[in-house]
Amino acid sequence: MMMDYPLLIKTMLDRSNTLFAKKEILSRGLDADFRYTYGDFYRRVCKLANVLKQLGVKKGDVIGTFAWNTHRHMEIYFAVMCSGAVLHTLNVRLFSEHLNHIVNHAEDKIIFADEDLLPSLEEVADRLKTVENFVVLTDKEEPPTSSLSPLLHYEKLLEDAPEEFIFPGDLDENAPAALCYTSATTGLPKGVRYTHRSLFLHALTLCTPDAIGISEKDTILAVVPMFHVFSWGFPFAAALTGARIILPGRDLSAPTLCRLIEQEKTTLIAGVPTIWINLYQHLENGASYDLSSLRYILNGGAPISKSLVENLEKKHELTVRGTCGMTEATPVVLTCPLKSYLEKELNEEQKFALKAKQGLLLPGLEMKVVNDNDEEIRWDGKEMGELLLKGPWIASEYYKDPERSSETFKDGWYHSGDIVTVDEEGYVLVQDRSKDLVKSGGEWISSVDLENNIMAHPAVIEAAVVAIPHEKWGERPLACVVLKDAEKEKVSANDIRAFLEGKVAKWWMPDQVFFIDEVPKTSVGKFDKKRLREQFTSGQLG
Amino acid sequence: MMMDYPLLIKTMLDRSNTLFAKKEILSRGLDADFRYTYGDFYRRVCKLANVLKQLGVKKGDVIGTFAWNTHRHMEIYFAVMCSGAVLHTLNVRLFSEHLNHIVNHAEDKIIFADEDLLPSLEEVADRLKTVENFVVLTDKEEPPTSSLSPLLHYEKLLEDAPEEFIFPGDLDENAPAALCYTSATTGLPKGVRYTHRSLFLHALTLCTPDAIGISEKDTILAVVPMFHVFSWGFPFAAALTGARIILPGRDLSAPTLCRLIEQEKTTLIAGVPTIWINLYQHLENGASYDLSSLRYILNGGAPISKSLVENLEKKHELTVRGTCGMTEATPVVLTCPLKSYLEKELNEEQKFALKAKQGLLLPGLEMKVVNDNDEEIRWDGKEMGELLLKGPWIASEYYKDPERSSETFKDGWYHSGDIVTVDEEGYVLVQDRSKDLVKSGGEWISSVDLENNIMAHPAVIEAAVVAIPHEKWGERPLACVVLKDAEKEKVSANDIRAFLEGKVAKWWMPDQVFFIDEVPKTSVGKFDKKRLREQFTSGQLG
Repeated sequence: MMMDYPLLIKTMLDRSNTLFAKKEILSRGLDADFRYTYGDFYRRVCKLANVLKQLGVKKGDVIGTFAWNTHRHMEIYFAVMCSGAVLHTLNVRLFSEHLNHIVNHAEDKIIFADEDLLPSLEEVADRLKTVENFVVLTDKEEPPTSSLSPLLHYEKLLEDAPEEFIFPGDLDENAPAALCYTSATTGLPKGVRYTHRSLFLHALTLCTPDAIGISEKDTILAVVPMFHVFSWGFPFAAALTGARIILPGRDLSAPTLCRLIEQEKTTLIAGVPTIWINLYQHLENGASYDLSSLRYILNGGAPISKSLVENLEKKHELTVRGTCGMTEATPVVLTCPLKSYLEKELNEEQKFALKAKQGLLLPGLEMKVVNDNDEEIRWDGKEMGELLLKGPWIASEYYKDPERSSETFKDGWYHSGDIVTVDEEGYVLVQDRSKDLVKSGGEWISSVDLENNIMAHPAVIEAAVVAIPHEKWGERPLACVVLKDAEKEKVSANDIRAFLEGKVAKWWMPDQVFFIDEVPKTSVGKFDKKRLREQFTSGQLG
Repeated sequence: MMMDYPLLIKTMLDRSNTLFAKKEILSRGLDADFRYTYGDFYRRVCKLANVLKQLGVKKGDVIGTFAWNTHRHMEIYFAVMCSGAVLHTLNVRLFSEHLNHIVNHAEDKIIFADEDLLPSLEEVADRLKTVENFVVLTDKEEPPTSSLSPLLHYEKLLEDAPEEFIFPGDLDENAPAALCYTSATTGLPKGVRYTHRSLFLHALTLCTPDAIGISEKDTILAVVPMFHVFSWGFPFAAALTGARIILPGRDLSAPTLCRLIEQEKTTLIAGVPTIWINLYQHLENGASYDLSSLRYILNGGAPISKSLVENLEKKHELTVRGTCGMTEATPVVLTCPLKSYLEKELNEEQKFALKAKQGLLLPGLEMKVVNDNDEEIRWDGKEMGELLLKGPWIASEYYKDPERSSETFKDGWYHSGDIVTVDEEGYVLVQDRSKDLVKSGGEWISSVDLENNIMAHPAVIEAAVVAIPHEKWGERPLACVVLKDAEKEKVSANDIRAFLEGKVAKWWMPDQVFFIDEVPKTSVGKFDKKRLREQFTSGQLG
């Protein structure tokens, strides 16, 4: 019949080398920009594979990274996975007890770490039980002084390694290739293991035009951290297609990103709403760039407000395409292209509302949205339910965690915890995380919807809505609002409520509106509502 | 880890129904155009699945089709495969002995046939051993008079069938979904079985921008017959993405195609060189259409000449994208996008030459090109070798044919029989079929290269070069040339040779040039060189 030929990360690496050896990878180090080609990249990946072998790395061994988005990080990605070992990307913003836990839980054998991040590792080093070697990623000729031991020097290791390496072509596509932990509402982070097959299919699907549409002609600015579900798969899609990739290091400030877009003629950029809020503020403050090379801004991680979508497009000709993903889903499951007939049928307002949605299910996946009684909701854009998913890049369990696995993976479905509506056309809009839902008088209030309505107020930069306990209604919404500097003290809670009138149902109106300096963010840049609720409970708000 | 979730044809069908139910399918019947939606399509596919069940079709049963590109044919595609049965597309242009053989060899249980094609079936009916039912596809209310028995009526069967059907979601992705036979140089046609996995991965990969780039916004004119390796996968890619598809029935004449492109704002069209030669002649004869909606013309099946690529683009603003495929490869393995830097570096002439190539290997596949000594050739655009392929949509055998399988599938590679060069950038150019190669004085002459050079002559419509035996040199090239009507009798063999001077090596020069009225074509529209050689041997030429 057909060949039994596996879907492997190796295929991506080989393609980038054989067909796109001249294409560029741009990596922004701490000190200077670094440019080289996929051909150079391949040779260093081979050298690194030899280093791994010398260090005793075997098939299935877990190798940690603690690093920003750089060429070295991308080299480690491919060398580890193509060798048959398992890449474990450690979130550099984790609390030390969580960091310490996930390294031990995953049984990392080596940790590759950026020089500036060593202090965080040093803090937990004596509690790490399985790590045999640390390797520092640095431009400097000598490794820095550090309590980590043994601390090897990445460039020196590579220098001495041979340039020839034959990666195994017969790995099982269902073998683990990577591991990533996600924060839990309660308790320690939960691990998800990805297979070669899941990463390959995910990357290939992202390349299709209605997903993201990635081709050799693209220049991708990979803003999403490589420790956050593999920068949403961009390093893989780039290698597969030969697209030029920019790895921006640790500086994700709006001026840096704008400069990179303009100078490098970036065509694709992806990130969480905070990135776009900052970018928009930067442009509003008078900064001027030619950003016309961008095909889209890909928003993910959390919903974006319609007002921001509209402002970016009307004022700065920047088109937003929504996406939705989860650590448990490799991560992307939805993207938001405008169907051809909607392009004609919808008015401008409706189009902006649509572009703020998370979008349509990617090909290859299966979804259903169910209410509290496990019944599928109507696709009317109003009824809410939890998004359930199935598919070849959806997890079936958390790593070595049967108890929490059984809560989330039931009856063959991944229960995402995202509360969504689906409109008649199949576009999904995330209304809330189930744990963040406000349930008032037995009815659900969408905190995301409230937030977006508040953020449409011209004086508001950000707004987060959380549920607080209420004697009569069970829960009521509390709004925490960040005002523009120039507007502080000028806008009152009543102004905000007045602005919401007519835009949301009366019973959705937040009883309390607090003005804060900043919405606390999680380690991956999402609104940290857990912390907001804690701040409220402990009386730190208001 | 990740869910064990299969890649199935069902996923494509479900997606077209749930997300693109309003999108149109246009089918050109014998009498009239027929338009309906993917939603209507889905309901009829479900009805047909019920009919198949009533007719006793079980998992793995083989169901034949003998039909043009129509909506009914596409319904049969999906109903058969999604039910777990195996679709067998019969080439309507086969000699009766071959037709009779492949039906028996595949053990077809039912044959669905277009009304106008019944006579060919009637001719072989008494030799068909496994067929239990014939079903006629017709717009007429009653089945036509025919010796076929039992002869059921497709529309009547559907009329009476329920509209609900639950397709199995747990099929094995490696189970056979379809079967297609390919003509052999000697002997009976050889069968290739495709799996759900191979068809899914092939279709998904075609959707990526550098392959073909298929999205919901496209209108695809599926010119390649659906009996010829599934119209190169377009019905699958269309369902997967929700692209509008036009199934043009049996009339593939240039005026009809041009009218369909203009009226329906077609964005993609795919076919063999003969289609483009006819289309070009039609336009040259003064026909005028707005064809500006076309993104590309996809050429495949056989090489296209650089002069035709150039003429189509310069005179009619039609861009050609090359592809290469084989029945053994589902079928597409190469497509020819221009790399971004070549877009800048190459001059116009070089670009036309590049666009006439078959192109770059698709992501997911592996290739190597070897000479007679099994050594990999240099990628210099000059050295020739045979193209060998591996990958998830490459066959590993011919169906129930161990002997011929072992000749073609060796050491884990599919030996394509295509003799190619590969340039420094990885672009493959087919020089010849190994069986059509001219081996003169121990050196290879590319018949394709010679043909393209002859076809660049302004008086020439088509040219085919074949090897004829030669006492001294082993073989020598013979050119068979079709002149434009107005040029007949005006151009001599010496004129053709003079035109070739300086364009090809001296020893490539064809000793004999014959003028013929038409190049004989195979059942899938390629130059039939076997027949040309036979005509030469029997003295019918010259």
